[in-house]
Amino acid sequence: MDKKISEKVINRLTLYHCILSDYITANIEFISSKQIAQLLKIDDSQVRKDINLLNNSGKCRVGYIVKELKASIEKTLGFKKTKKAFIIGAGNLGSALANYDNFTDYGLNIISLFDNDKAKIGKTVNGKKIFNIKELPTLAKENGIDIAILTVPRQYAQPTADFLVAANIKYIWNFTPTVLAVPEDTQVWNENLMGNFLQFTYNI
Amino acid sequence: MDKKISEKVINRLTLYHCILSDYITANIEFISSKQIAQLLKIDDSQVRKDINLLNNSGKCRVGYIVKELKASIEKTLGFKKTKKAFIIGAGNLGSALANYDNFTDYGLNIISLFDNDKAKIGKTVNGKKIFNIKELPTLAKENGIDIAILTVPRQYAQPTADFLVAANIKYIWNFTPTVLAVPEDTQVWNENLMGNFLQFTYNI
Repeated sequence: MDKKISEKVINRLTLYHCILSDYITANIEFISSKQIAQLLKIDDSQVRKDINLLNNSGKCRVGYIVKELKASIEKTLGFKKTKKAFIIGAGNLGSALANYDNFTDYGLNIISLFDNDKAKIGKTVNGKKIFNIKELPTLAKENGIDIAILTVPRQYAQPTADFLVAANIKYIWNFTPTVLAVPEDTQVWNENLMGNFLQFTYNI
Repeated sequence: MDKKISEKVINRLTLYHCILSDYITANIEFISSKQIAQLLKIDDSQVRKDINLLNNSGKCRVGYIVKELKASIEKTLGFKKTKKAFIIGAGNLGSALANYDNFTDYGLNIISLFDNDKAKIGKTVNGKKIFNIKELPTLAKENGIDIAILTVPRQYAQPTADFLVAANIKYIWNFTPTVLAVPEDTQVWNENLMGNFLQFTYNI
């Protein structure tokens, strides 16, 4: 379990997990590596190799036991280790993410949202309150927040990041199209939508 | 220019492009590979290697010429080759994407949105009309649509994908947490948010 798992493998395992969730919803008990491979249009042997990295015992002649394989992935990827997050920016994207109930299954607990728009402050999205951004430093400390999910308009991205860094936030999940300048000990994950789009459509 | 560029390089080039856009906004004329590397916390030599893949001539003693480097990236990645898309699902996420004006800079032209909710049909988001999903096959054909951006709730993901495939859509940009079953000649890009989140937070 202490094996270092590469980012590519983590990414594939979460896709397997999506498939397994759908199988459980459909009351299907077993799944083969071939079925997973076909859905993702990848190689069968790749799927088996990835699954071999898990401490998964639920294998039998007809395939993997769906529930056990799902549990193995969750254990390996630390779904149970809950991480607390604030959403910064209560616009369409921030609201969409706050409404995404699926997140809690993966250990992401969105506590509340922040904005500077008085028309939004005090309202709730999916039961989560929108606070004045000024209250963030105090509330981050009180709640032991690990992650800020940044969904503000592009022109506010860097000043907001500076504000988050000053509030001692160490992980920024960046949904803005700005590359943020942050200190060495702050981690940024760029949700680079346009990069993904260009990869996807490169051959059209 | 016909060199096959890897997905990792495409991803990094789009991040360089974000940085260059911000430099232009800030009226900065030159940029060094070191400045780019520091912002992205990657290696200087990596940045130079990526830039060497471009037909970029705007290099001088003080660094790269921002405008020329930006234009080189756009040329190499085909930003000018406009691709037309429909957004399927006019909820928060669909609306957020429709509002993302940045997309057009990258050659993504979102024509309209689709939903089955009568309260939404006929309204507009950022000047783009929301149509009844039933009209999609006809409108896709009339407009020569390349891409469907799928933002429907999880339980509608697969039936909607089947509907898109029947309407001859060949590229699905999938924002739902479902792995879609599609025919061989249909391409799906999974915007695997939870996979990204788990990669990002694996060490928290």
